[in-house]
Amino acid sequence: MNIHLKRHSNLPVHEQICQYFIDRISSKIMKDGERLPSVRQLSKELGVSLVTVQKAYQQLQQRGYVESFQGKGIFVKSTHLKEDIDDTHTNWHMVIPDYVPRAQSLSISQPLRNIRYHLGTACINGNLLHTEWIKKVTMQVIEQHPQLLGQYSSANGDMEFRKAVSDYLRTKQLSVAPEHILAVSGAQQGIELVAKTFIGPNDVVFMEAPTYPGSIDIFKSRGAQIIPIPVEHDGIDTKMLVKLCDQYHPKLLYINPTFQNPTGTTLSVKKRKELVDIAESYHFLILEDDPWSELYFKEKPPAPIKSFDTSGHVIYLKGFSKFLSPACRIGALVTEGPLLEKLIAAKSISDLGSPLLTQKIIAGLLQSKELNNVLQNLRTDLKNRGKQCIQLLHQHSSQLTFRAPNGGNTIWVKLPQHVHADLLLEYCHMKQLSFLPGSACFPTHVPNQYIRISYAGLPQEELKQAIEILCEMVNTLSSAHKYYPIESYPSF
Amino acid sequence: MNIHLKRHSNLPVHEQICQYFIDRISSKIMKDGERLPSVRQLSKELGVSLVTVQKAYQQLQQRGYVESFQGKGIFVKSTHLKEDIDDTHTNWHMVIPDYVPRAQSLSISQPLRNIRYHLGTACINGNLLHTEWIKKVTMQVIEQHPQLLGQYSSANGDMEFRKAVSDYLRTKQLSVAPEHILAVSGAQQGIELVAKTFIGPNDVVFMEAPTYPGSIDIFKSRGAQIIPIPVEHDGIDTKMLVKLCDQYHPKLLYINPTFQNPTGTTLSVKKRKELVDIAESYHFLILEDDPWSELYFKEKPPAPIKSFDTSGHVIYLKGFSKFLSPACRIGALVTEGPLLEKLIAAKSISDLGSPLLTQKIIAGLLQSKELNNVLQNLRTDLKNRGKQCIQLLHQHSSQLTFRAPNGGNTIWVKLPQHVHADLLLEYCHMKQLSFLPGSACFPTHVPNQYIRISYAGLPQEELKQAIEILCEMVNTLSSAHKYYPIESYPSF
Repeated sequence: MNIHLKRHSNLPVHEQICQYFIDRISSKIMKDGERLPSVRQLSKELGVSLVTVQKAYQQLQQRGYVESFQGKGIFVKSTHLKEDIDDTHTNWHMVIPDYVPRAQSLSISQPLRNIRYHLGTACINGNLLHTEWIKKVTMQVIEQHPQLLGQYSSANGDMEFRKAVSDYLRTKQLSVAPEHILAVSGAQQGIELVAKTFIGPNDVVFMEAPTYPGSIDIFKSRGAQIIPIPVEHDGIDTKMLVKLCDQYHPKLLYINPTFQNPTGTTLSVKKRKELVDIAESYHFLILEDDPWSELYFKEKPPAPIKSFDTSGHVIYLKGFSKFLSPACRIGALVTEGPLLEKLIAAKSISDLGSPLLTQKIIAGLLQSKELNNVLQNLRTDLKNRGKQCIQLLHQHSSQLTFRAPNGGNTIWVKLPQHVHADLLLEYCHMKQLSFLPGSACFPTHVPNQYIRISYAGLPQEELKQAIEILCEMVNTLSSAHKYYPIESYPSF
Repeated sequence: MNIHLKRHSNLPVHEQICQYFIDRISSKIMKDGERLPSVRQLSKELGVSLVTVQKAYQQLQQRGYVESFQGKGIFVKSTHLKEDIDDTHTNWHMVIPDYVPRAQSLSISQPLRNIRYHLGTACINGNLLHTEWIKKVTMQVIEQHPQLLGQYSSANGDMEFRKAVSDYLRTKQLSVAPEHILAVSGAQQGIELVAKTFIGPNDVVFMEAPTYPGSIDIFKSRGAQIIPIPVEHDGIDTKMLVKLCDQYHPKLLYINPTFQNPTGTTLSVKKRKELVDIAESYHFLILEDDPWSELYFKEKPPAPIKSFDTSGHVIYLKGFSKFLSPACRIGALVTEGPLLEKLIAAKSISDLGSPLLTQKIIAGLLQSKELNNVLQNLRTDLKNRGKQCIQLLHQHSSQLTFRAPNGGNTIWVKLPQHVHADLLLEYCHMKQLSFLPGSACFPTHVPNQYIRISYAGLPQEELKQAIEILCEMVNTLSSAHKYYPIESYPSF
């Protein structure tokens, strides 16, 4: 077990141990039926009292994650038939300690058996992307530079790509030189590069709560102490942020300011400027993740936080998978000075540099004259999808609370009181439907009252069926509550 | 400073501190003129005595890495004009501690100013790769599956890619199911995934000495304790390995058994089997890196170590950049059971999965009927290059010691006594030539008597000129030694 215990955290040690196992179990790193270390063993390993470990295990049992068998030990609760993961010849693998505390993004993206309606993944259906255009540009790129197929990219990225990104960002009111751009293999890698370069076990990271699940995985795997900051209708609660800055000494704030994943809220201009001021005062870094600010449905969203940064406190991250080509997995990171130099070093350690081919394709797409039209069409399509989804939700259930999206591709839905997201998910799975339970978006376990659904992943007709099924299940569970008190729900 | 001090290491603490700074300075993470923390500050931060830090700094000064200015502090020695890295608005960046101890692979791959003859990077000149064939296959792949451009890959990799790799590995006497294959973004990422999943600050990693510089970067960045094992004419010294297994408890051995980078030696079949036995006895993992076993010049090399593994101790890594397409940056990792599941989790945290497009292209190349011909031509071309390089070395200098290569693309050269590789490099830079100093290939600093040169990167005519220049410089420095004792060389 590599549990990074934080002795000076506000979270008690037994709660930290409990949280570690919840993370591993809910993201399927620990499997149904897998045995937990004995109380004695773990207490010795972590240098904590037996009582502390017992307390943690009791909580896990109460919350339904594990079960105890007299004389045998404590095991991850089997909800389904146990899969045979113990190949005899790899039995010894089970005792090798690893450094992966949580991989929620994997459990979201892994195709579940028998699932037909995927409302869980925030990606855009291939039919909505202009694959013919991408194909044409790709062919042109290869036709024009066949020799590129035999070449490596430099660690910081191809110059043509970085120039194209620089030009593109200028249209978003962000003016940066190509020299300040680092090519990354998707925004996820960008977040991970920043985390592994600047964040370690004793560092405090501030995150929006809720936030993008994949980012939580990364900061947890670095052993950071994560402090959640609530999100309001106009983005992160800056008053609370300042309060917490006095209490902790954050090294970094991770933020997704435009059509936030998962809530869909957009940070106001006022708050963007405020954030830069706060970061300057308390000397922390802001990691600004911008996956889809181009997917707006009404007015254009404000300029990136980075555009207000004159003191090098903001690292800006632009992914291209959500509106250009997911098959290329290319993004761009923007920063300067010593920060950039260390990130380039970390990038070279990670993979020596992103593929030259996919960088050249994204450069070609960004430079294409058709880009504006393509984006305009995508915006219109998504806007209509979002509208349809909202109408369907209203039509089929009166018990859900949500806000109509202004951009992006997800809706954050509050369930009626007493309908538990995990239980709802279990019922929906039986109807071949999945969504993202809100708990995945919080760094620490919270009352499970929210779900995130994406309206961009399914073909139109299937989206309609999916929302009908979802609402039906919500209504069923909600009315069932009238007959059964909440305590008697099967734990999950 | 994030120096992972190992209190129980055989290396004294002052030597560990010294090594940390040498790593950062020689891989350019610390710049010319950058200030080191004060003795008092570092002693406090690391919890070691003032004398220990002083000793470390004195050694750095004696070895020529830093210089001290009375009353001002200790600075990285300026060998050239100081570049202006202190943008006033990013001055505060200098005080942010980072977790990057060494990035030697970056300093090798970064294009140096005014360098015409790159003998340093172990990659194959684009003219030797069959870019027309790669182009044709790429076009076919896109033509046949245009919809793939709008799709993500799953975290573990595209099934068609994994099947193609499985079929290909069978031709190398390695029989593995597609389910046991994980797509990675180049072998470098494969090594990093294994390191970040299983290796942390208290873990012992065994490495060949010398070894591939990029792998040292990775294990150092995880804070591992690295124990070097000598390489003999038939690969790693297994007797020494067993001795060290008794002394330490290794968690992993990283090995490059075929045409080892940098020495070119190949591990015998006997030793391959022995290694698996040793790993089983002492319960450690073997990470087998195989970048170019297909590039043999005489008989086919032995089957991978993985093919002798019946107990899940070997993780096998196959890169495709060295003989198919570097522009795709795709490789494959082979393992099973819980190890594989945790590596997939780590992969999803790192980047959600490798690009679908580049996986499909590599799959297409591996399935192509022309693959065998292409590889045969490449072998012949490289063999001739190697032969030419050896002849030129013999012709222009009688003072170099080396073995003719049997495969791969590098030659490991021992310099005449009293010719220091770093000094030779400085002289060669003046003639627009660079090579890899042997010190980059050792996890700890060693007497600098070796250099690695690659004969595959330059066009034929330039290779000829490069070897002539290299030999001329060696001869000059060697004869200069007759007049100057070694101590009076300018330190570098």
